[in-house]
Amino acid sequence: MKALYFDGTKLDLLEDYQIPNSKETLVKVKLAGICGTDLEILKGYASFVGVPGHEFVGVVESSSNKDIIGKKVVGEINAVCGKCNFCLNGLERHCPNRTVLGILKRDGAFSQYLILPEKNLHVIPDSITDEQAVFVEPLAAAFEIVEQIHVEPNWKIAVVGDGRLGQLICKVLRLYYHDITCFGKHDRKMAMLQKLQIKTKSKIDSEDEYNYDLVVEATGHQSGFLNTLKLVKPRGTIVLKSTITSHDKLDLTDAVVNEVTIVGSRCGPFKPAINALSTGKVSVDELIDATYPLEKFKDAFEHAAKPGVLKVLLKP
Amino acid sequence: MKALYFDGTKLDLLEDYQIPNSKETLVKVKLAGICGTDLEILKGYASFVGVPGHEFVGVVESSSNKDIIGKKVVGEINAVCGKCNFCLNGLERHCPNRTVLGILKRDGAFSQYLILPEKNLHVIPDSITDEQAVFVEPLAAAFEIVEQIHVEPNWKIAVVGDGRLGQLICKVLRLYYHDITCFGKHDRKMAMLQKLQIKTKSKIDSEDEYNYDLVVEATGHQSGFLNTLKLVKPRGTIVLKSTITSHDKLDLTDAVVNEVTIVGSRCGPFKPAINALSTGKVSVDELIDATYPLEKFKDAFEHAAKPGVLKVLLKP
Repeated sequence: MKALYFDGTKLDLLEDYQIPNSKETLVKVKLAGICGTDLEILKGYASFVGVPGHEFVGVVESSSNKDIIGKKVVGEINAVCGKCNFCLNGLERHCPNRTVLGILKRDGAFSQYLILPEKNLHVIPDSITDEQAVFVEPLAAAFEIVEQIHVEPNWKIAVVGDGRLGQLICKVLRLYYHDITCFGKHDRKMAMLQKLQIKTKSKIDSEDEYNYDLVVEATGHQSGFLNTLKLVKPRGTIVLKSTITSHDKLDLTDAVVNEVTIVGSRCGPFKPAINALSTGKVSVDELIDATYPLEKFKDAFEHAAKPGVLKVLLKP
Repeated sequence: MKALYFDGTKLDLLEDYQIPNSKETLVKVKLAGICGTDLEILKGYASFVGVPGHEFVGVVESSSNKDIIGKKVVGEINAVCGKCNFCLNGLERHCPNRTVLGILKRDGAFSQYLILPEKNLHVIPDSITDEQAVFVEPLAAAFEIVEQIHVEPNWKIAVVGDGRLGQLICKVLRLYYHDITCFGKHDRKMAMLQKLQIKTKSKIDSEDEYNYDLVVEATGHQSGFLNTLKLVKPRGTIVLKSTITSHDKLDLTDAVVNEVTIVGSRCGPFKPAINALSTGKVSVDELIDATYPLEKFKDAFEHAAKPGVLKVLLKP
């Protein structure tokens, strides 16, 4: 089969990569999304070697569960042991023995086929298009915030970053809360959010400083993290939704003096994400900038890395 | 009066510094403690200029409250406006208009006299010695952890750092919890903690990694913070109890992937600290290494900065 293979240095299209053969469920990938983590992986993040890609929709080709064969599915990306203390206490996504689709010791979705344990898969209703279904995984990550943090209804919320992840986070938070401000850079992206009655700002004014109860970092850049420290109220909460890629200076003095709580946040629950898409409560169609065939992966990755670009999809 | 004055570059003894004259309560300082923050201030922390020192015990010389004149007191270090949203909502210690004794726009305790608002002062019972009373402020900072974090009784707790602050934190946590391990460097200090059935370790073994529900950073060094990230369980909690002075690389990727919560923690409640000292539930006598007269401040600061030294006191 065709697959994009990252050898630790560069990404290549292999024409005859072996179709995985295991007791897990085999999925024919219909469409996959390029995410910020994928761009980081190509720079060496997590020292991954193999087929990247973890946002996908596909059709079940073979499975121990005959009921799902031929069904359209998305998949949770953490494949876990089911036996450790984390798995036994509802924290499967933190299983220390886990592999992670396209991120940790497991080939991913930039490929014609992938495998995952059957329990990881969610059948998608027909009301969700393939393009929309690719967003279930990152949308679930946005729902994780609401699962982790007890947000009071009157809180002032800031989201730093108007990119792929920032957009989804704003949309999810807007389902529950009314006072949301996105600090962004791009007029086109901020206009999308304004339609949802989300306030947008391109810079932090003095009135914004230390004025938000909850601030979500969604840029993946150190400057974004420093901005969250500027925006958050004393005793407020910062959610780190993306790994900070810069390894430069990070001064946490403000966090101590202002007794800020910083919460790391990663993968999230699929069910509310699928529900939000199938009911149309969250729209994602306007976030897709382009779709490329797998063969044109170089163009696709170049496109995805451009400033201002939202979601780029790959079609195996 | 005699006072130690820091001009932003160096600390000097002034013989004729003006006795403060205001509507606030005037306190004759009996004894003051040198804290890690003071050592940082002399390196430029918080750009402080004036008389440093914020751990003290003294006797009230004059006050609008006649009942406390002649009484032995300690004092809360944040002098607040009483009118802002923080003050009106029980978060006075985060008042944006505050001054802080010996740290922010307010002369401190390395002096024969100091002033504070009357409401900041707490009369100390005779059962607490002067030496013990100096520990009320840092002990209160240790109690702040218990106020901020909901700790489950079965949690495994690690404290990183066996110095001044680490000792007090271990002692306070030990009042409530049984499974505490201190990661330290000095045999003498670790032996003190062992007497309280606190486990001690001088290095992190593989069994310690990602194994603690709550980890408290009490070294003030970047390496200490990196160790907390190594020790804390996925979905666990790190408390940053000291400002991290190094401005080097700080990579928060682990915090995001493991969905760790990092809580900044500063000043704390005086009442439980006074109570713990007066009832003898927390002992601090063994933490005092030396007492110097104010005139010998150079020796005192040199002594306090030495590795392995616990508390050094100044007697004005």
